[in-house]
Amino acid sequence: MRRLSSAAKIEGKTIAFVPTMGYLHDGHISLVKTARKKSDIVVVSIFVNPIQFEQKEDLDKYPRDIKMDSATLKTLGVDILFSPDEKEMYKGFYKTHVEVDNLGSKLCGKTRPDHFKGVTTVVAKLLSIVNPDIMYLGLKDFQQQVIIKKMIGDLNIPVKVTSLPTVREKDGLAMSSRNSYLNQDERKAATVLFRALKLAEKLAHKRVGSADNIKKQMKNLISSELLVKIDYISICNPLTFEESKNIKSPTLVAIAAHVGKTRLIDNIII
Amino acid sequence: MRRLSSAAKIEGKTIAFVPTMGYLHDGHISLVKTARKKSDIVVVSIFVNPIQFEQKEDLDKYPRDIKMDSATLKTLGVDILFSPDEKEMYKGFYKTHVEVDNLGSKLCGKTRPDHFKGVTTVVAKLLSIVNPDIMYLGLKDFQQQVIIKKMIGDLNIPVKVTSLPTVREKDGLAMSSRNSYLNQDERKAATVLFRALKLAEKLAHKRVGSADNIKKQMKNLISSELLVKIDYISICNPLTFEESKNIKSPTLVAIAAHVGKTRLIDNIII
Repeated sequence: MRRLSSAAKIEGKTIAFVPTMGYLHDGHISLVKTARKKSDIVVVSIFVNPIQFEQKEDLDKYPRDIKMDSATLKTLGVDILFSPDEKEMYKGFYKTHVEVDNLGSKLCGKTRPDHFKGVTTVVAKLLSIVNPDIMYLGLKDFQQQVIIKKMIGDLNIPVKVTSLPTVREKDGLAMSSRNSYLNQDERKAATVLFRALKLAEKLAHKRVGSADNIKKQMKNLISSELLVKIDYISICNPLTFEESKNIKSPTLVAIAAHVGKTRLIDNIII
Repeated sequence: MRRLSSAAKIEGKTIAFVPTMGYLHDGHISLVKTARKKSDIVVVSIFVNPIQFEQKEDLDKYPRDIKMDSATLKTLGVDILFSPDEKEMYKGFYKTHVEVDNLGSKLCGKTRPDHFKGVTTVVAKLLSIVNPDIMYLGLKDFQQQVIIKKMIGDLNIPVKVTSLPTVREKDGLAMSSRNSYLNQDERKAATVLFRALKLAEKLAHKRVGSADNIKKQMKNLISSELLVKIDYISICNPLTFEESKNIKSPTLVAIAAHVGKTRLIDNIII
């Protein structure tokens, strides 16, 4: 990977990078298409990063289909698929981690305390290896892209980051590899996450009530779906994740919930 | 710095890097001279890194003389002196750290728990900025160079690291910027550190006793100098810093001690 990357740099070519855990959906594809338009060389990584999963999470059953993904990326004109082995990435008594203080313990960090440390560590490694000029991330993982941008700025890593909008199914459900876990009833119930976000947007635009009041109405709506259990609802500052009392400036509304056994997240900026 | 570094890379030149906190002594100069011989471009950084000092340590009074250092580096044929501002290095609600688990809590980490986290963080930043092909470190800071090498391997940072021998005064005292703190009596007493290391070497070569016994004899010798207070004496594996019981393979003998108010370290491999 590094040899290909260095060769491209010497030829003065720009490298765009899309890091993924594979099982590609239209959200990933939107990132890849943008990367393809804007850069000479497009690198996509597929690596199900073990250290960003908590002990009891779905690492082992995380969906994988490298053949299908590889074919998809070929049709999109991707130059390099980088899919390293787990043992190669964390070899020889691996001990180092990269962590962004504070930001990683909020929102998803409350129930996934080691998650963002695992994400920033693997992204630091991938950036060292791929050495891209620009990296594309999805806004569906809003907290993740904020934390990665902070890490890149703090560590002076020479890469630009562009975050692209969440891609949704026709009924509003945010695209996610984990949607493949849902059965028919769960799939239907899962749309309540986006409906709750749209409710928040509507209430905020009408200036109806405080953030607490909006969260309450979102909870009421979500509780109508018996298959859905809320992990958190947050209305907060999109850079610091501090909870907001009122909605005056651009504000993040973020949800995490279990739909059956599947944990899904979604968010909008209002 | 990055512009100069990129320009050199495009011209196919190799970059050697010597990171320092300034107040240069013959130990630093030995690194710079080697770098000068082996590479096209030599970059030396001078940055007294605040986050590697514990709260009550000597950050404010750490010796500085940038004019003298700059003149020294010029005579040595150094191409670039990189001396960033503290506010530039840690700007905008700085939050990110790079840490090597376990290794940083042993030896010096026991009394300096945040020290190596500060070191690995600043070195990761400097390597992102300078982008050298090779970096030179001194073996006087033995634990530091082990931890930095581990970080570089783990994070796939594309730089080679070469560690060079400790440079000593004629009476054996290891060169250190902190030696400038010592008064005449302290300076004389400080030689006991190296004398204790040589005693360990002698006993080990004669196969006299266990590691514990050797440590005891080192302590006895050092206690003859009333100005010197031992922080630790360790006889350990030079890669894991696990204490050794017997000396069979190459072993690190490391000392840290306060001489008056000045904390000094030294080590040898036996």
